[in-house]
Amino acid sequence: MDGRRDEANDGAGKDMGATAAREAPMRIEHDCIGELKVPEGVYWGIHTQRAIENFTVSGIPDSSHEALIRAYAVVKRACAVANAELGLLAPDKAKAIEQACEEIEGGALADQFPVDVLQGGAGTSLNMNMNEVIANRALEICGHPRGDYAYIHPNDDVNRSQSTNDTYPAACKLAICGGLTPLAAAARRLRDAFHALADRHADDVTIGRTQLQDAVPMTFGQEFHAWASFLKLDLQAMDALVDQLCDLNLGATAIGTGVCADLRFRERATRTLARLTGLPVHAATDPVASVTDMSAYIAASACLKNLAIHLKKAADDLRLLNSGPRCGFEDLKVPARQAGSSIMPGKVNPVIPECVDQCCFVIFGMDVTVNWAAAEGQLQLNAFDPVIIHEILTGMTLAINAMDMFRTKCVEGIRVNVERGRLHAEQSPSIAAALNDAVGYERAMGLAKDAMAEGVTVREAAKGHVDLPDAEIDRLLDVVALSRGLGQTCRTPGER
Amino acid sequence: MDGRRDEANDGAGKDMGATAAREAPMRIEHDCIGELKVPEGVYWGIHTQRAIENFTVSGIPDSSHEALIRAYAVVKRACAVANAELGLLAPDKAKAIEQACEEIEGGALADQFPVDVLQGGAGTSLNMNMNEVIANRALEICGHPRGDYAYIHPNDDVNRSQSTNDTYPAACKLAICGGLTPLAAAARRLRDAFHALADRHADDVTIGRTQLQDAVPMTFGQEFHAWASFLKLDLQAMDALVDQLCDLNLGATAIGTGVCADLRFRERATRTLARLTGLPVHAATDPVASVTDMSAYIAASACLKNLAIHLKKAADDLRLLNSGPRCGFEDLKVPARQAGSSIMPGKVNPVIPECVDQCCFVIFGMDVTVNWAAAEGQLQLNAFDPVIIHEILTGMTLAINAMDMFRTKCVEGIRVNVERGRLHAEQSPSIAAALNDAVGYERAMGLAKDAMAEGVTVREAAKGHVDLPDAEIDRLLDVVALSRGLGQTCRTPGER
Amino acid sequence: MDGRRDEANDGAGKDMGATAAREAPMRIEHDCIGELKVPEGVYWGIHTQRAIENFTVSGIPDSSHEALIRAYAVVKRACAVANAELGLLAPDKAKAIEQACEEIEGGALADQFPVDVLQGGAGTSLNMNMNEVIANRALEICGHPRGDYAYIHPNDDVNRSQSTNDTYPAACKLAICGGLTPLAAAARRLRDAFHALADRHADDVTIGRTQLQDAVPMTFGQEFHAWASFLKLDLQAMDALVDQLCDLNLGATAIGTGVCADLRFRERATRTLARLTGLPVHAATDPVASVTDMSAYIAASACLKNLAIHLKKAADDLRLLNSGPRCGFEDLKVPARQAGSSIMPGKVNPVIPECVDQCCFVIFGMDVTVNWAAAEGQLQLNAFDPVIIHEILTGMTLAINAMDMFRTKCVEGIRVNVERGRLHAEQSPSIAAALNDAVGYERAMGLAKDAMAEGVTVREAAKGHVDLPDAEIDRLLDVVALSRGLGQTCRTPGER
Amino acid sequence: MDGRRDEANDGAGKDMGATAAREAPMRIEHDCIGELKVPEGVYWGIHTQRAIENFTVSGIPDSSHEALIRAYAVVKRACAVANAELGLLAPDKAKAIEQACEEIEGGALADQFPVDVLQGGAGTSLNMNMNEVIANRALEICGHPRGDYAYIHPNDDVNRSQSTNDTYPAACKLAICGGLTPLAAAARRLRDAFHALADRHADDVTIGRTQLQDAVPMTFGQEFHAWASFLKLDLQAMDALVDQLCDLNLGATAIGTGVCADLRFRERATRTLARLTGLPVHAATDPVASVTDMSAYIAASACLKNLAIHLKKAADDLRLLNSGPRCGFEDLKVPARQAGSSIMPGKVNPVIPECVDQCCFVIFGMDVTVNWAAAEGQLQLNAFDPVIIHEILTGMTLAINAMDMFRTKCVEGIRVNVERGRLHAEQSPSIAAALNDAVGYERAMGLAKDAMAEGVTVREAAKGHVDLPDAEIDRLLDVVALSRGLGQTCRTPGER
Repeated sequence: MDGRRDEANDGAGKDMGATAAREAPMRIEHDCIGELKVPEGVYWGIHTQRAIENFTVSGIPDSSHEALIRAYAVVKRACAVANAELGLLAPDKAKAIEQACEEIEGGALADQFPVDVLQGGAGTSLNMNMNEVIANRALEICGHPRGDYAYIHPNDDVNRSQSTNDTYPAACKLAICGGLTPLAAAARRLRDAFHALADRHADDVTIGRTQLQDAVPMTFGQEFHAWASFLKLDLQAMDALVDQLCDLNLGATAIGTGVCADLRFRERATRTLARLTGLPVHAATDPVASVTDMSAYIAASACLKNLAIHLKKAADDLRLLNSGPRCGFEDLKVPARQAGSSIMPGKVNPVIPECVDQCCFVIFGMDVTVNWAAAEGQLQLNAFDPVIIHEILTGMTLAINAMDMFRTKCVEGIRVNVERGRLHAEQSPSIAAALNDAVGYERAMGLAKDAMAEGVTVREAAKGHVDLPDAEIDRLLDVVALSRGLGQTCRTPGER
Repeated sequence: MDGRRDEANDGAGKDMGATAAREAPMRIEHDCIGELKVPEGVYWGIHTQRAIENFTVSGIPDSSHEALIRAYAVVKRACAVANAELGLLAPDKAKAIEQACEEIEGGALADQFPVDVLQGGAGTSLNMNMNEVIANRALEICGHPRGDYAYIHPNDDVNRSQSTNDTYPAACKLAICGGLTPLAAAARRLRDAFHALADRHADDVTIGRTQLQDAVPMTFGQEFHAWASFLKLDLQAMDALVDQLCDLNLGATAIGTGVCADLRFRERATRTLARLTGLPVHAATDPVASVTDMSAYIAASACLKNLAIHLKKAADDLRLLNSGPRCGFEDLKVPARQAGSSIMPGKVNPVIPECVDQCCFVIFGMDVTVNWAAAEGQLQLNAFDPVIIHEILTGMTLAINAMDMFRTKCVEGIRVNVERGRLHAEQSPSIAAALNDAVGYERAMGLAKDAMAEGVTVREAAKGHVDLPDAEIDRLLDVVALSRGLGQTCRTPGER
Repeated sequence: MDGRRDEANDGAGKDMGATAAREAPMRIEHDCIGELKVPEGVYWGIHTQRAIENFTVSGIPDSSHEALIRAYAVVKRACAVANAELGLLAPDKAKAIEQACEEIEGGALADQFPVDVLQGGAGTSLNMNMNEVIANRALEICGHPRGDYAYIHPNDDVNRSQSTNDTYPAACKLAICGGLTPLAAAARRLRDAFHALADRHADDVTIGRTQLQDAVPMTFGQEFHAWASFLKLDLQAMDALVDQLCDLNLGATAIGTGVCADLRFRERATRTLARLTGLPVHAATDPVASVTDMSAYIAASACLKNLAIHLKKAADDLRLLNSGPRCGFEDLKVPARQAGSSIMPGKVNPVIPECVDQCCFVIFGMDVTVNWAAAEGQLQLNAFDPVIIHEILTGMTLAINAMDMFRTKCVEGIRVNVERGRLHAEQSPSIAAALNDAVGYERAMGLAKDAMAEGVTVREAAKGHVDLPDAEIDRLLDVVALSRGLGQTCRTPGER
Repeated sequence: MDGRRDEANDGAGKDMGATAAREAPMRIEHDCIGELKVPEGVYWGIHTQRAIENFTVSGIPDSSHEALIRAYAVVKRACAVANAELGLLAPDKAKAIEQACEEIEGGALADQFPVDVLQGGAGTSLNMNMNEVIANRALEICGHPRGDYAYIHPNDDVNRSQSTNDTYPAACKLAICGGLTPLAAAARRLRDAFHALADRHADDVTIGRTQLQDAVPMTFGQEFHAWASFLKLDLQAMDALVDQLCDLNLGATAIGTGVCADLRFRERATRTLARLTGLPVHAATDPVASVTDMSAYIAASACLKNLAIHLKKAADDLRLLNSGPRCGFEDLKVPARQAGSSIMPGKVNPVIPECVDQCCFVIFGMDVTVNWAAAEGQLQLNAFDPVIIHEILTGMTLAINAMDMFRTKCVEGIRVNVERGRLHAEQSPSIAAALNDAVGYERAMGLAKDAMAEGVTVREAAKGHVDLPDAEIDRLLDVVALSRGLGQTCRTPGER
C-alpha cells in the first residue's frame, strides 16, 4: 500500500503538462454530446478537453490562480469526507479522493487546470476539471487506469451531493480568503515601512497643505503616519471580509433547493470545511438566495478598491512632495531608481509611485468589471462568477506586488528635506490661525495679509503690530508646538 | 425673555428665502477679499453670498439635502456645548447658538442654505453658511441685529475649536447615517412585500432556470423569498455601516493636528455628539489620517451599489418571468400600469421594473463618481467630499423611491401563473437529475435526451425504460418534493 | 379664424400647470387598462396621467430637458407634414397638429411634460404625452374641446405612421444635437479666454514640468495655449458627432420593419425633418438594427467625457501652478473668490477649479451609467434610452455651466507670476538638455548633477567646465530661445 | 559586408532571452545613477536592466504587445532616416540603425523587451529599451561589440532629435492602428457569419419582442442581419479612428517645444513615417497640447467599448432566444459545446455567449481604467500612457479572440426553430397593430384583448367581429407580409 502511494506520488508530478500531450496516446471519453479523444497522459477528461477547445479568449489558464485551485480542492475534500460519513461514498474511494485533493492542495498537478479563466458556464468547466483530475488521480491511487470511471466517477463519486453552483462559489470565496493572507502581509509590511519612516521624522516639522495651499504646521512624522493608518483601516476591512466570504452554500446544489443532496450533507460538509480550513465557514441562511447573491464579491472588490485609493493617495502625495528639484515643493526625495529621460540628462522621475498609480487604475477598472458581472445574474444563477474571481484575484496579486515594490524601491529610501520643511512651516501665512484665540479671526487675517504683502513671516508681521509681547508671539507661533495638538495623541508608544 | 423667543420663532420661518432678497435692504459685510452687500432679510452672510455667486453649475442647493443640513446643525450644537463646558464660549451665547442649531435640526430656516451642492472649497461654503445662519439666528434670539458679529461671530464663536475639515465630514457621515433610516425602512417594506408574495406561493411549484436553461423544480415561494433574503443582507450591511460612519474627527481642525482647539475639546465634543444623536459616535484613532480618509464613503457607496444590484436582479427576473404574453416564459404577470405602446394596441410592458433598472444604472454611475472624488485627495485634504455626499444622498433617495415604487406598483400586484409553473416543472428534461442516485448520471442523461427526442416528460421516458417501479419513478420525480430539499429549511416560521 | 387662434394662443400659456389641477374639473379618459380622471385644465391625457402616477423616483420632469421637448415637437411636425403629403392625414387636422408642434417648439406648453425623466417604457410615456398635448392643443385650435379624440386622436392622427421606438430616439438624438450648440458656444468662449491669456503671456518664459519634475523652458503662452487647443479638439469632435446623431429611423415604427407605416413615409418624414431642422438628417441603413443601436449615445457620452478630461486637466494644472502662496509652485494666482477657511485667516483656495473637477467626476460617472443602459438592450428594443438621454443632457448642461463659471470666475482673472516663471526656467537642471548637441548626453548629465550639487544654475556650472565659449553657453541656454523650437509654429497669427 | 550582415542576422535570433542571462558574462554600463552589470548576451542596456528590476507588478512584459514593439521600431526608423537626411546622423550609423529597426519590425529580437507593461516613467523605459536594443544591434551590424556606445549611442544617436514624450505616444497610436487591422478582420468575419445566417433565414418569420413582450412579426433574417449591421457600424468607426490616431508629435521632444530637435526634423520625420507605414500620418497642430492630449486613446477605447456593447447584445439575445428547451423562448438552438452541468444530466448551456459577455465586462472595466489614466495628466505630461496602451491592446486582442470564438463555436452552428418562430408570430396579440389603419387603434386594442381572453389568435378574434371580409383580415394579418415593411429595404442584393 505504501509502495503504491509512493508510486502514485511520483506519478503526480511528472510530465502531465498540456504540452506533453502531443503525439501522446489517447483515451476516448464521452459525454452527452458524444465522444472525444483525450491525451492519455493528462488527468483531466472530456469535459475539460471540450472546455480547452471552447474558450480561447484570454489565454490565461485557471491554473494561474493557485489560490482558486487549492481552495477548490479543499472544498472537494470536505464534500468527500461528508459523503463518506453519510455512507454515500465507499470508504476506500473516499480515501483515495481525499488523498488526491490533499495533493492538489499541496500544489501537485498544478498544470492540470488549463481552461481559460474567462470560461462560460458559470464555473462548470473548472468544477468538472477538478472532478476529473481528482477522479483520475484517485483511480491511479487505487491502481486503476485513468478513465476507468466505472470504478470512480467524476460526477457520481467526486461530485456527489454537489453542483457547480454550490462548490464553485465556495471555492471562489475561499480563494479570496486565501488571497487575503498575503495581501494583508504585504499591507502590514508597507504599513511598517510607513511607520518606520514616520518614526524617523517624528520631530521634523513641515507645512501641512490643504487644497494645495499652505496651511498649518505638522511633522513629517504625522504626514507619513497617516499613510500607515490608512493601511491599518484596510487591514481591519480585510479581517471583516472573512466572515462574509465564509458564508457558503454547500449542499444547495443546482439552484439552492438541494436536489440530489442528502439533507444532512449540508451541515456535515460545512462543518468539515470549517475544520479543514480553520476558517469560520458557516451555512448561508437562504440557500436559494445564496446561489445568486454576489454581495461577498462586491464587498471584496470594494475593499480592494479602497486599499488602492489609499495607495494612490500615498503615491500621489509623494509625487507632489518630491516635485522639484528646484521649481516644486521639494519636501523630500524619493530614491532615484533610473534615469528619467532619454533627452534631459540627469532628470530623475518618481517612477515607482507612477507605477503604483497605474496599478490602482487597473483596480478601479476591475471594480467596474466586477459590478457588471455581479449585476447580470438571471433567475436561479449568475453565470459570470468566472470573470469576477479572475478580476479580484488578479487585482489582489497586483496590489501585493505594487505594495512590495512601493515599499522596497521607494518608501524605504525616502530622504526628507528637513530644513526645507521647517522653512515652509515658518513661512506659511496660514499660521496666523494660531493667533485667532489671542487677537480674533479678523485681526489674524490682517496679519496674514501683511505678512504676504511685506514678504515676511507672520511672526515678523505680528511683532510690534499686535498687543502681545514678543515672547508670547514666539510661543504661539512655535511651529513645533503647533504641530502638536491632537497630533500628539495620534501615536502612542507601542501602538501600531 | 419668552416674548423675545416667540418673536424670534415667528421670525425664523418667514420670508427669508433667497427670492425675497430682490430690492430688499442690504447690509454690508466684509471678509479677507473685501466688502459685499448681503440682503438684510437673509440669515446668511458674506461667505455664503460669495459662494452663491461663485458656484453656478448644478442648480441644486445644499438645502435639497435636508439630512445634511440637520446633521450639520447637530454637529454645531455639540461643539457649542463642548465649548461652553470648557469655558471657551460664554453661557448666554452658547445657549443662543444651541437654540439656533436645534431650530435648524427641527427644519426651520431650511431655505437659508442656497449654495450649489457641487461647490468647490471642500465644504467650507456650507460650513460658513451654517456658521453665519446660526450666528445671525443666535443674534436675533439675543435681540441683536443680523450682522452684529462683534457680539456673536460666525468664526470666533460658532466655529470655535472647529474647522470645515473636521465638522463637514462629521456632518456628511451623520447625514448618511440619517439617510440610512428611511433607506432601511423602505428596504424592510419591500422585503416584507417579497415575503408576503413568497408566502402566498409557498407551495406552487415552478421550474428553476440556470443560464436561462430549464433546470430543476422549485416553488415560486422560494424564488420570491430569495429577493427578500437579498434585502435582508442589505439591511445587515446598512447596520454594519453605522459604526464606520460614526468614526469622527471633531477637534482635528484644519489638518488633524488640532490647531486652535483646546486639547480637551475633542473628547467633549465627541461625547456630546454621541449623546445628542444617540449614535455610537467615537473619535478617529489618527486624526491626521481621518481628515483625508474616504473609506466610509466608499463603503457607503458600495453598500448602496450592492442594494442596487439586488434590486436590478429582482427587476430583471420579473421582466423575464413576465415575458410573453404568448411567446415568452409567462410564469407570472406584473400589474398592468399603463398602455405599453403608441402603435401596438393592448400591449402592456413591465414599466415599473424598467424604471427600477434605470435607477440602478444611475447608482452604478454614482459609485464611479464617488470613486473618482475619493481617490483625488492631495496631501492634508481631499477637497471633493461635496460631490461625494451629494451623489450618495441622491443615490439613497433614488433607492428609497425606487423601492417604494417597485413595491406598491409592481410587487404587491404580481399574479403568478400557477398552472404554467407546474407544467414547466414537469416538462424540464433536467429533472432527470433526480434519478442520478437511482440510475447514475450517465443513464439519467440518456433519459433526458430521450424525453426531448420523443417530446415527452422525463417521467414518461423513464417508465418502462429503467429498472424501477413506476411508483418509485413517480416518487422520485415528484416536482413538489423535488422543490423541497434544503429549500424547506430556508424559511422557518416566524423567521424574517 | 384669427380670433380663435389668438384665444388659443392665450390659452396655451395660462394655468395649465400640474399644480393648477387641484380641485379642477375633471375629464374622463380611457385606455386598454380602464378609465381615469384627468384634470380638465391640462393638455395631457390618460397615458400621461398614468405615467405621472407610476414613475416617482427622481422627481425631475421631462420638461426640465427643454431641448428634448423641442426636438420631439419638431419630429412630430415632420411626421404630420409627411402624413399630410401622403394623404394619410386630413389637411385641416395636419395644419392644426403642425401649429401645435410649432408652438411647443417655440416654448409654449412647457409645463405640460411632467413625467419623471427615469420613466420605464422606453420613452412611450413621453411620446404619448407629446401625442396627447399636441392632440388637445390641435383640438383647441380647431375649436374642439380637449379629449374630443374622435376628431383628432393622439394615436391614430398625431402618432400616425409612428411608434415610440422610432420617434423617441429621433427626438433624443436631435436633442443632443440641439444641446451641442450651446455646449460648443461655451467651449468657444472658454477657448477664447485661454487664447487671450496665452496671448498676454506669449513671451513670458517659465519652466515646463514633466512627471512633476523640472524639465525645459516654455512660455506661459504655450502652456495656456495648450488648453485652448484641447477645446479646439473637442469642438471638432462635437462637429463630427452631428452626422452620427442625424442618422434617424423615422418610419421604422415598432421594431424597424415599418409595420403600420406607408412605405413612402420614411423618406418623406426624413426629408421634411432635414428641412425643418436644417440638420443633415438621413435615414438609417438598417432600420431593424437602428432601433437597438446605441452607438450615437456612446459616442456623445465619450465626446462629453473627453471634454471633461480636458477641463479637469486645465483645472488640475491651475491648482498646481497656483499652489503656495509660499510653499508651492506659485507660478500664478487664480482670482481670490472667497475666504478659504473657517479657521485659517486669509487663506484663499482655488475653489473654482475644484468645482470644475467635481463636475468632471459627475460626467465620468455619467459615462458609466450610459454604458450600462446602452449595453442592456434585449431583442428588438433597448428600453433604457430615457436614462441615457437624461444623463447626457444633464451632463451637457453641467459642462456648459462649468465652462462659463471657469472662464468668468477664474481664467479671465489669472495673474501670472512672471518673475518666478523666469527664475524657474533658469534654475531647472534639466535645461542641460540644451547642451546635448554640443557636449553629448553624458557630459550634459554631469553638468546637471554639478549644478544641483553646487546650488548653481546649469549655465553657471557649465562656464569654465566645458569646452565652449561663455557666449556660446549663454546662447545655448537662453531660456526664451529654448522655449521656441517647434513652439513658435504652434500659433500662427490669426490662427485659432 | 554581406557576410557580416548574415552573421549578424544569425545572431539576432539566438539565445538572447532574459533567462539565458543567468551565469552569463556581464558587461558594465552606467547612467546618471551609477554602474550596473548587464548580461553580455542581451541587447538591452542599463536603462532596461534597471527598469526590469524596478517594475515588478503585472509580470507581463512589453514584448507581449507585438504591435507596440513593431510600431516603436518603425518610429525609430523614420527618425533615423530624418536625422540622416538632415545630416544629424552619419550615413553608416543611420544605415545600421535602420536595419536594426527593420529587423525588429520583422519580428526579430522579440524577447528583448522585458519591462513590465505597467512601468512608471511615462514610457521612458520602453523608449530606452528600444534605443539600447537598436544601438546594440546596430553596433553588431557594424562589427562593434555591444556596449560600445562611443560608436553608436542609444541617446545621442538612436534617440537623436527625439524624446520619450513624442516617440512613445507615436508608437502607441500606431500600435493601435496596427491592432485595428486584425480587429477589423475579425469583425468582418463575424459580420459575414451573421449575414450568412440571416440569408439562410431571410424568409422565416418569427416574432419581434420589445421590452420582452411579444410585438410584431419579423423574419429571423432581419433579426440576425441587425447584428451584422452593428458590426458594420463598428467597422466604420474603426476606419474613422485611423486619422485621429495618426495625428503625431514627432519633433516635439520633451514638452512640445522641440528642444534639442532641428526645426526641420518634425516635417521630415513625419513624412518619412507616413511613407514607411502607408498611414495618413500628419503632424499635430499644437505640439505642446499634443504631448498631454489623450483624446485618441479615449476615442479608441470608446470604439472598442461600443463594439463590446454590440457583441454583448448579440450574445444576450442568443441566450434569450436559446432559452428552454421547454420552458423558454426556444426560437433557436446554439450549438451544444459541452455538458452544462455536473449534476443535471443532459443539460447544455450557451457557454460561448456567456464567455463573450465576460470579455465585454472586461472591456467595460478597461474603458474606466483608460478614463482614469487619461484624466490624471499633470502639467506638461501625462505619465500614464503605459497602462492605457496596455489596456487598449489587451482589450483589442480579447475582442478579436471573442469574435472568432463566437463565430466558429456558436454563430456558424445556430439552428433556427422555424416552426416555432411562425407560431410565435401568429399568436402575438400585438399583431393587432396591423388593423390600426382599418379599424383604428382603439378597436384594434379590443381585438387584442379578446384574443388573449379567448385563447385565440388575433386573426381568429377578428373574423366575424370587425367589419372586414375574412380575406382582407387574412391579408392584413399575413405575418410574412407584416415582416416586410421597411424591412425589405434593409438588405438590397449584393449590399453588405
